[in-house]
Amino acid sequence: MSSPSGKTYLDLVKACDSYPHIDISQRPYSRDDQTALYQLLLPGDSRPHGFLLPSTIQKMPWTSNFAITHDPSGPRSVRVLDPSNGADTANSINAAFKEVIQSASDSRVFGNLIRPHPEDYKVLGANYDGKRVQLLRAAAGLFGICCRGAHMTVYTRTTAGEIKIWVPRRSRHLNTWPGKLDTTVAGGVRAEESPFECIIHEADEEASLPEELVRKHVQSVGVVTYVAESAAGSGGELGLVVPDILYVYDLEVGPDITPKPQDDEVEAFYLMSVEEVKEALLREEFKTNCASVMIDFFVRHGILRDDNEPDFLEIVTRLHRTLPVAVRS
Amino acid sequence: MSSPSGKTYLDLVKACDSYPHIDISQRPYSRDDQTALYQLLLPGDSRPHGFLLPSTIQKMPWTSNFAITHDPSGPRSVRVLDPSNGADTANSINAAFKEVIQSASDSRVFGNLIRPHPEDYKVLGANYDGKRVQLLRAAAGLFGICCRGAHMTVYTRTTAGEIKIWVPRRSRHLNTWPGKLDTTVAGGVRAEESPFECIIHEADEEASLPEELVRKHVQSVGVVTYVAESAAGSGGELGLVVPDILYVYDLEVGPDITPKPQDDEVEAFYLMSVEEVKEALLREEFKTNCASVMIDFFVRHGILRDDNEPDFLEIVTRLHRTLPVAVRS
Repeated sequence: MSSPSGKTYLDLVKACDSYPHIDISQRPYSRDDQTALYQLLLPGDSRPHGFLLPSTIQKMPWTSNFAITHDPSGPRSVRVLDPSNGADTANSINAAFKEVIQSASDSRVFGNLIRPHPEDYKVLGANYDGKRVQLLRAAAGLFGICCRGAHMTVYTRTTAGEIKIWVPRRSRHLNTWPGKLDTTVAGGVRAEESPFECIIHEADEEASLPEELVRKHVQSVGVVTYVAESAAGSGGELGLVVPDILYVYDLEVGPDITPKPQDDEVEAFYLMSVEEVKEALLREEFKTNCASVMIDFFVRHGILRDDNEPDFLEIVTRLHRTLPVAVRS
Repeated sequence: MSSPSGKTYLDLVKACDSYPHIDISQRPYSRDDQTALYQLLLPGDSRPHGFLLPSTIQKMPWTSNFAITHDPSGPRSVRVLDPSNGADTANSINAAFKEVIQSASDSRVFGNLIRPHPEDYKVLGANYDGKRVQLLRAAAGLFGICCRGAHMTVYTRTTAGEIKIWVPRRSRHLNTWPGKLDTTVAGGVRAEESPFECIIHEADEEASLPEELVRKHVQSVGVVTYVAESAAGSGGELGLVVPDILYVYDLEVGPDITPKPQDDEVEAFYLMSVEEVKEALLREEFKTNCASVMIDFFVRHGILRDDNEPDFLEIVTRLHRTLPVAVRS
């Protein structure tokens, strides 16, 4: 289905999953290829955990805890070293990340390290004696590690059985996506928490939804995955490789439940019909990755189907892109 | 989660999506590579619509309506020609397929052409003046075209809210997967019908479910996609590339509805708890692609989650593989 502006649902999914569909980790490059990415490698692990731009490699104030390989015979890479020699690898890696990111932040070589996100993100698939590897959220994009978000769509049914969806508008003063429509409750998953616990505290902070209600009725319904190429509007460096996993939840509520803004990230909540949400999607009023979460909701709830959407198959597969980084320990 | 036999849900998904995860359509090959596949090309269309084994190319009694290219400078291919020169391309293609398949069937060079499936499958993404391209279902695997199935899981809830699933056992006399557990209602989608209409008639034929009930309450919930490599047990040639789309539907029913076998494909229906289905899955009692449909059901219904399944992410992305053939006209 296309809109008056000519956008389709598939266009919206592609705008989120914007990194070209090549096998990044297997991408061949020549000695002359100045654009080839550097793999982020961890001690004792040959799988890429992230991808860095050549410009990031050049500008980052690397310490002796990182070994950079430009050798064109294999993939280019930056490998984190382990000065503890296995005694406490996770701690060594985390300290190495912290030091180089602090130094980059102090010297202000990258724009996005001064964003107000003091928490860490987990490096997926890394596990040294059960200990986490993590780095500053605002630096995740520079290292191209896989980010994790949790998104919960809160909806209700009219007495006629029609679905209506609670849609927030982001505050106009936000640095990222000001004034755009969003998922009812959504947040980045901190290193130390699970997607489920993220939803619980975001439901309280962003929408004043009682913890007991959410714990009892929320349903895990899958993931949306994509690889974005960071662009203008996302608030940071351009052209970064950003693999992302959104853990998706549904919460059906009765007419007595009304989400209310609590922190200053949400301007207002609207209870929108499916038709209104469709129109807002195709007008590109939604934050890019929230459009993908809504389209996934439409697929799971039989609103977009094989018989009313010519791109149905490509939409569903593209909402579940295989990620180029290690995701399992 | 792993079973006593050591199988995991991810193992089951991989057993269905068994073709190696390479970009088949871009696979490079050398002059010496005797295993490289041949692309199936249609008139005026550069996108592959299927993939054929070299042994199929060798054994098929090709007519003058097909042009085969062995040139190692580009992909190897078999292209259907259009003697009508655009006057009636779809008809020309369909007649060419029919003639060569009939000839192969008469000379019995392939085992699986004598299977009792007289209906045709549609060649996806092919559309000449709104007309379909189609070929005999039993020959779909030889040409490596994308097959379409429709699977509906029928379930009910106990008064305590616990999900119970209606699971059929396939008749012992079937050529394919005899005695295995199956999706409640499932069938191959014929060239001339939609996945939804397939579900409607299969629900009647396989489970005696009233058409009115199904039309009113069935919900389209997405697709499962995979590429299988045909193996022993599937009833035909070995090593074929089989891209497949399963259109997935859910139907929640009350305790008053009981599916009953009508045709001779189903031996019996069991109303199984989620625990019983889990055990049967991990014992490999389900037909391979029905296991994937059940695992997709578990994901969408919050039974398999990030917090209880270490392979959660890989399971969800792998259930939605991007297919190597054209799927959109």
